Amino acid sequence: MAVYTDVSDTELAAFLDAFELGGVLAFKGIAEGVENSNFFLKTERGSYILTLYEKRVREEDLPFFLGLLEHLSAKGIQCPLPVRARDGRTWRTLAGRPAAVMTFLSGLSPKRPDAQQCAEVGAALARLHMAGADYGLSRANALSLEGWKPLVKSCEAKANGVRMGLAALIVSELRWLEQHWPAGLPQGLIHADLFPDNVFFIEGKLSGLIDFYFACNDTLAYDVAICLNAWCFEADNAFNITKGRALLRGYTKVRKMSAAESAALPLLARGSALRFLLTRAFDWLNTPKEALVRPKDPLEYLRKLRFHRSVSEPSAYGYPAGAA
Amino acid sequence: MAVYTDVSDTELAAFLDAFELGGVLAFKGIAEGVENSNFFLKTERGSYILTLYEKRVREEDLPFFLGLLEHLSAKGIQCPLPVRARDGRTWRTLAGRPAAVMTFLSGLSPKRPDAQQCAEVGAALARLHMAGADYGLSRANALSLEGWKPLVKSCEAKANGVRMGLAALIVSELRWLEQHWPAGLPQGLIHADLFPDNVFFIEGKLSGLIDFYFACNDTLAYDVAICLNAWCFEADNAFNITKGRALLRGYTKVRKMSAAESAALPLLARGSALRFLLTRAFDWLNTPKEALVRPKDPLEYLRKLRFHRSVSEPSAYGYPAGAA
Repeated sequence: MAVYTDVSDTELAAFLDAFELGGVLAFKGIAEGVENSNFFLKTERGSYILTLYEKRVREEDLPFFLGLLEHLSAKGIQCPLPVRARDGRTWRTLAGRPAAVMTFLSGLSPKRPDAQQCAEVGAALARLHMAGADYGLSRANALSLEGWKPLVKSCEAKANGVRMGLAALIVSELRWLEQHWPAGLPQGLIHADLFPDNVFFIEGKLSGLIDFYFACNDTLAYDVAICLNAWCFEADNAFNITKGRALLRGYTKVRKMSAAESAALPLLARGSALRFLLTRAFDWLNTPKEALVRPKDPLEYLRKLRFHRSVSEPSAYGYPAGAA
Repeated sequence: MAVYTDVSDTELAAFLDAFELGGVLAFKGIAEGVENSNFFLKTERGSYILTLYEKRVREEDLPFFLGLLEHLSAKGIQCPLPVRARDGRTWRTLAGRPAAVMTFLSGLSPKRPDAQQCAEVGAALARLHMAGADYGLSRANALSLEGWKPLVKSCEAKANGVRMGLAALIVSELRWLEQHWPAGLPQGLIHADLFPDNVFFIEGKLSGLIDFYFACNDTLAYDVAICLNAWCFEADNAFNITKGRALLRGYTKVRKMSAAESAALPLLARGSALRFLLTRAFDWLNTPKEALVRPKDPLEYLRKLRFHRSVSEPSAYGYPAGAA
């Protein structure tokens, strides 16, 4: 849930004067996303999402993010499309913050994705990787191996307060990943946060991808590993190989993985599990009690990390996935 | 902001099977209302608000509230209309709570209402009072004089922690109001919470009234006094007599006030200010730090109460309001 900034009716009217959207019919803060404030906006022209960028998204990254949405939309990816203002800009200022108006995507996020939804998201991820290949801008991944080091450092002292032994584990895991992190795998544009929250479905069919504010350039197979973590574990933290196979089959039907990519999956899944373990542990340790957003449980990713440490072959995830 | 209960896509689908609304296209928690969880719902049939009733609204009161919305809608009042399920019911169970689907009302709530909006809300309140006159059900006001006594009792011990001297003030104010509270004024159906948050406008014209969950039977002029408090003070807590006159003119053009009613306005405004001072002080003292809803400032109503104590004639509010 996230509406961090109050927007008055008069501020909104002044902001929308710069667009050709007609009169405002509704404007309601919505509980979507945790980084920004999002509003449902209905005007005489249609339904939109208005996003106010709070401090975690830097204004200098907006050309990359909003340009990416335009690029992907033009390639047929179902994602929000920024509405350009009369002056051609894709964002302007509202309530002292950068703000953009996006097309409204229909669909619901699954709370417990099924195998068919895993197959759909795998295919959508592969289409995203292919559509992003010729995007002109790039952005480094701030939450890759280099970014984990300061996170480990800042969490280490208090990590045992989350779970005894966690401090030693994150230090040793980081050291191991530094020694084994693969080089030379295919790189490209990745979503980097394609959790079920960020994927919409209508009657079992994928209808949209949202929340591209972690998108960056990195190892494509790492994005697959993030999705294995986000989509294929059950509530009891058991890995569901049927869902893993469905996701990988969906992906590889659209974009083949090389032998080196599939062989790296266990390692990339470990890295991805450490990444979410670290950011969740950081938020857990640093979120004030009165915050509007409750931090997510870091231990979910500790259990996932342990699973991946036990895996040596991609077959444990259902790869090769075989024919459809 | 209020989404207290998580609803999964599968729970929602099962709930909506009981209605004739077509497939779901969107479902988003919205930051509206503080008592219930509200969701924007878009289906093949149109846009709706789905309300989950949390513990402060009792299920046994739903026939009164939802029947009232049907009654008022039939009389042309712009308010949410419950959508009946196939079996004719206006509410069913979702995520373990009573839940209703309402028509979606367009419009925006004003953050700083102007005099024209005050005139509109005055007229809408009078129309509401007249439309409610022949509603068949009734409900006592749990937050009238009798209800203030236990609130004073429960706040008294800690009230000086909100502001030194507040404990003595609420005790003496309650005693004075008990001695002077008017009897015999016209009674009827009142909204009892018609704050700007609960009124929508489109381009200066009132487009809807929402949140009827304090509606009850009580003194009609008391509802006017609530609106004077809610609409006619400036941010610096100065009473704006231009807005007061506009509101009272809007009201009396639709429904005349008797001499006894207008003469009672200062007293009723004191009572209404005490009511919101008490509930806000109670929430202030009893809201856990980690709650999703931040309590409103009780001292705003202490300052309003002090103003009303200085008033003896309704002319201080702009009454008689004269011709339009």
